[in-house]
Amino acid sequence: MEIAELGEFGLIRHLTNDIEPVNAETIKGVGDDCAILQFGADQRVLVTTDLLLEGVHFDLQYVPLEHLGYKSAMVNLSDIYAMNGQPRQMTVSIGLSKRFSVEDLEQLYRGLRRACSEHSCDIVGGDTSASLTGLTISITCIGTGSPDSVVTRSGAQPNDLICVSGNLGAAYMGLQLLEREKLVYNQQLREAVQRGEKPESLPPFQPDFSGREYLLERQLKPEARRDIVEALAKAGIRPTAMIDISDGLSSEIMHICEQSNTGCRIYEERIPLDYQTAAMAEELNMNVTTCALNGGEDYELLFTVPLTEHDRVAAINDVHIIGHVTKPDLGKVLVCRDGTEMNLKAQGWKAT
Amino acid sequence: MEIAELGEFGLIRHLTNDIEPVNAETIKGVGDDCAILQFGADQRVLVTTDLLLEGVHFDLQYVPLEHLGYKSAMVNLSDIYAMNGQPRQMTVSIGLSKRFSVEDLEQLYRGLRRACSEHSCDIVGGDTSASLTGLTISITCIGTGSPDSVVTRSGAQPNDLICVSGNLGAAYMGLQLLEREKLVYNQQLREAVQRGEKPESLPPFQPDFSGREYLLERQLKPEARRDIVEALAKAGIRPTAMIDISDGLSSEIMHICEQSNTGCRIYEERIPLDYQTAAMAEELNMNVTTCALNGGEDYELLFTVPLTEHDRVAAINDVHIIGHVTKPDLGKVLVCRDGTEMNLKAQGWKAT
Repeated sequence: MEIAELGEFGLIRHLTNDIEPVNAETIKGVGDDCAILQFGADQRVLVTTDLLLEGVHFDLQYVPLEHLGYKSAMVNLSDIYAMNGQPRQMTVSIGLSKRFSVEDLEQLYRGLRRACSEHSCDIVGGDTSASLTGLTISITCIGTGSPDSVVTRSGAQPNDLICVSGNLGAAYMGLQLLEREKLVYNQQLREAVQRGEKPESLPPFQPDFSGREYLLERQLKPEARRDIVEALAKAGIRPTAMIDISDGLSSEIMHICEQSNTGCRIYEERIPLDYQTAAMAEELNMNVTTCALNGGEDYELLFTVPLTEHDRVAAINDVHIIGHVTKPDLGKVLVCRDGTEMNLKAQGWKAT
Repeated sequence: MEIAELGEFGLIRHLTNDIEPVNAETIKGVGDDCAILQFGADQRVLVTTDLLLEGVHFDLQYVPLEHLGYKSAMVNLSDIYAMNGQPRQMTVSIGLSKRFSVEDLEQLYRGLRRACSEHSCDIVGGDTSASLTGLTISITCIGTGSPDSVVTRSGAQPNDLICVSGNLGAAYMGLQLLEREKLVYNQQLREAVQRGEKPESLPPFQPDFSGREYLLERQLKPEARRDIVEALAKAGIRPTAMIDISDGLSSEIMHICEQSNTGCRIYEERIPLDYQTAAMAEELNMNVTTCALNGGEDYELLFTVPLTEHDRVAAINDVHIIGHVTKPDLGKVLVCRDGTEMNLKAQGWKAT
């Protein structure tokens, strides 16, 4: 079906008419100039927004649209959790060129809606527009939290423990894998064309990912860590600072240090890695710690807690203590496995 | 200055570090995963979002970046007023290719910030990204209103008066003027190149707009009608339905009718037109009513009020009563100057 058949308003209706708000504060969602939300007293409203552009943030040659929708939502949901909040509403704006069909958008929305449904977040509005070039996705997410539970990047104190959820570097390894398989496929395509075959006659992109499924999943289908936020609340722990890892551990811990006016010591041997990440790094002849520090797109939570919370935070499943906060003049340091110290950099690091 | 010199975070800081929130509920703006807002009890939170793409929504050959920023903000502010609300916060995401400099972005932000400042709206966050192609602007605006003052599109009742602010069609005429002058300039450019001159040696685009400044201003620098929302409040009038005119009077009144389950009668002779709009339409041999009905980008407010409010609404400066709401089976009708009746269409209209 051509999008022109539905028209702009018809398309929005088509995509959203059976979305039922699940939060009581969603008074009115899609269908007016604005969404109307009601928040009780003693609430904080959290707002985050992300712009995703084809060719920059995603490559449609290997990212299915449903996964893209899911990930686009997750990236925003993760920002709400990074404030220790609960996602509530989302707006989604999409710019798309003529090569996209209604079915394509349905797939994209299926992913978006699944992510939102899993996190009890209402899609309450948005904008759809023609684009002369590629696909553009802009999402704004609104969340809530009580005034004394919301966590910023700026509250870390010397001696606080630095913790991270899950493991790092796997999403980056997944991207390397996809890029490698894409090169292989494009080479096959070129050879086929040179033999005089039509590109359409080739089988679709069927890369070999056996044994690497976890890396792919981390790249294509990241999961925002609501479970960690809930576990912290259950344990009675309020982090002093928190951020989600979108640009890599190194960049994110530096944000916390800069905004809290502290230094840090991160221990390389404590950085959590999955076995597949390490194996893939070795296969590609890459340093796995570099990948974990700078790879990004992990969407894990990085947070600091007072030293007095050591036992309680250590008892939470899938949370790892990787270092501690220091006074600012001690710098932002990575302590390597051999005991040498490096200064952390937003991209890579070098010897002190 | 190259954007690469500042880096992503440096650029955001550079653009936003002296933005001071003016609303008490803005607890934390730019600089964390989320903006933190606090709303009192008995409030409605309004959220709207718009995506603007180069080549689709704007043409940088004749739109200065400062105007583009101003207009991008106004489009969103207008949506908040269309709910009878007050704008409070805004997030701004920008995707841009390498041809843009820091100075370009400063200009864009200057316009954005001026618009927000005039309407007491805080810029509280956003995202900046590389783009492989043109400029992308995505804005989300949040507003507030009390539960009994917020107005949707769905409350119009038969016999309500249909009112519109300002005048219509001028922004569309301004666009025609700009497009015409652009063609003239591009023709000069081609001729110069054919003569062997370098394009750079030509003077910059200096179109002749004398006597047409009002049309240009309506296209390049629209103003969201806060004054009308305030005048309505002062007069003690709560519209039964309201919408802002972005796609043209015809399309917008149809939204109100469809969502209120009503018909309408609009009187052609009552549609407010500026003298310059009429003169330009005649010069271009276009029907001025068609331009007013379908031109769009007026950002005027279209609203309905109970018949009992006639005298009070008629007394408000720059508000025009152009028709009334009817039962749905009477259709959506334009009564022409000669007394004939046409069915309104979202684009154009035809004889019944």
